[in-house]
Amino acid sequence: MSRHKVIYDTDPGVDDAMALVFQARHPDIELLGLTSVFGNATIETTTRNARFLAGRFAPGVPVAQGAAAPLKRAAPEPLAWIHGDNGLGNIAIEAGSEAGLEAALDARSAHRFVIDTVRAYPGEVTLIAVGPLTNLALALAEDPQIASLVKQVVIMGGAFGTAGVLGNVTPAAEANILGDPDAADIVLGAPWPVAIVGLDVTQRTIMSQDYLASLRDRGGAAGQFVWDVSRHYEAFHEQSAQLKGIYVHDSSAVTYVLAPHLYTTRSGPVRVLTDGIAVGQTIQKPSTMPVPAPDWDNRPECTVCIDVDVPGMLALYERTICGTL
Amino acid sequence: MSRHKVIYDTDPGVDDAMALVFQARHPDIELLGLTSVFGNATIETTTRNARFLAGRFAPGVPVAQGAAAPLKRAAPEPLAWIHGDNGLGNIAIEAGSEAGLEAALDARSAHRFVIDTVRAYPGEVTLIAVGPLTNLALALAEDPQIASLVKQVVIMGGAFGTAGVLGNVTPAAEANILGDPDAADIVLGAPWPVAIVGLDVTQRTIMSQDYLASLRDRGGAAGQFVWDVSRHYEAFHEQSAQLKGIYVHDSSAVTYVLAPHLYTTRSGPVRVLTDGIAVGQTIQKPSTMPVPAPDWDNRPECTVCIDVDVPGMLALYERTICGTL
Repeated sequence: MSRHKVIYDTDPGVDDAMALVFQARHPDIELLGLTSVFGNATIETTTRNARFLAGRFAPGVPVAQGAAAPLKRAAPEPLAWIHGDNGLGNIAIEAGSEAGLEAALDARSAHRFVIDTVRAYPGEVTLIAVGPLTNLALALAEDPQIASLVKQVVIMGGAFGTAGVLGNVTPAAEANILGDPDAADIVLGAPWPVAIVGLDVTQRTIMSQDYLASLRDRGGAAGQFVWDVSRHYEAFHEQSAQLKGIYVHDSSAVTYVLAPHLYTTRSGPVRVLTDGIAVGQTIQKPSTMPVPAPDWDNRPECTVCIDVDVPGMLALYERTICGTL
Repeated sequence: MSRHKVIYDTDPGVDDAMALVFQARHPDIELLGLTSVFGNATIETTTRNARFLAGRFAPGVPVAQGAAAPLKRAAPEPLAWIHGDNGLGNIAIEAGSEAGLEAALDARSAHRFVIDTVRAYPGEVTLIAVGPLTNLALALAEDPQIASLVKQVVIMGGAFGTAGVLGNVTPAAEANILGDPDAADIVLGAPWPVAIVGLDVTQRTIMSQDYLASLRDRGGAAGQFVWDVSRHYEAFHEQSAQLKGIYVHDSSAVTYVLAPHLYTTRSGPVRVLTDGIAVGQTIQKPSTMPVPAPDWDNRPECTVCIDVDVPGMLALYERTICGTL
């Protein structure tokens, strides 16, 4: 099988970091670049973190800086209580930067980097987007034709209620989609193949403390890093959700690229609410629904993940980090 | 146990009729009255049907005519393709009316009937509402204090996604709530005990053709009626959802009153979207959700049914119709 050429659009972010290590260590993924976006922290912080992560785990992979704010709204507050003040669980990251180990910053903006890279490899590029979807919307606005040149877009975001929740930051909205609902409605309505990996599967997939400790003990530097970067994040989960472990958000999008058979999916167009008390909600019209729905019916079908083989997902991540694939 | 004093707020409607027979035959329910509302058909049709049903199965129980249209919108089109042109699956109903068997029509409006009856039995009345919630909103507007005098309000309506759908008439809305979303948001925000029996449980509960045939053969006149009234409705389910049987909507609300232990529930305030592409959607903030949500947090908790003991529900209905409780 040919490797997946991936652009990783990310707002690191603890789970973004864990998903980056996953991609960097998996032999079937060829990282073409990282694009940063505001979200879990400010664009300055997420770009710094993306450069740190690429420099340490994916040497030679460029980073392009993306949007600092949503298309039509003010930038949200950094989620410091979830991801730490530095966006990476308050681990020490200065040493790497000071030692000159951070990745080069591409001269182009993130959305221009996406356009150029997609056009350089027509039909081959997978976009894994795990933050607000602003960069992708900007790329579509500047060059709509890329929609037909991308292999697929895999998004961590949204929620469809099948796991009991429609959101994690409001009763109706997941954080990435709420980060830029206007951009999300554009991206999910563009004529490219989109798969959505939302809370329906990511909150069903939990890495326990024992699982993470095993990665630490058996996964070398990568495993130790995954452990270190997730300490603050794990404490947040225990405090907020009485959860002994962490939800697996962004790494689930990577898993979908590598092993889509682990996911149960549902097809149908998806809309994002852009105003009102449920702003940021993702709503799919399943293709099996018999009634007309004009606000959905003219849009392309998206693939929405509604269930997951949890042991299969966790085993794939573990084997990748531990080098036992 | 004392009997449940019930006002049945209804828009018959095939499943409304099946739920009326259920209530009329169950010894623990004392029907104080039926109140009609537009919804499955026009108010003229639903009121005529309510009088026919009460006259045939609950002699002496009065019927009060309710709202012809939602609080702020035009009345929806009758759902003739679901409930038949006459709202009762096109069974013959003229004979009953012509024979003078229909129930008396109370001189009061439905919402006034609700107010008077609740005040006559403070703390004792259960409102089972299985149509648009206009009558209940009008009652609250005219006499807000009834909220503290009602025993409980059990509503068939809405959907929360746990069974895979957020709606049946749009991708985000269930028919009863969409029938009057403004009224629904008022009713679910009033300080009375509300339980919501929505698609999360009603679409999990299916009466097969064999089940219905068994009622026909063993349930006397009531069973024969349930069979007859559901023929058109069953054909609709097969055509629209490739379902060999029928969803159990309104009778599930009755079951919740009689046997709440058959339902798994979740507490938390519920909002109804009153505009936008998802108008009519019901969204709960589960009480376990740790984030603040100002649009929900000042509202009373509702009890939302998210799972059901299906065999238990079906057995209760069957034993009631067949007189083998």
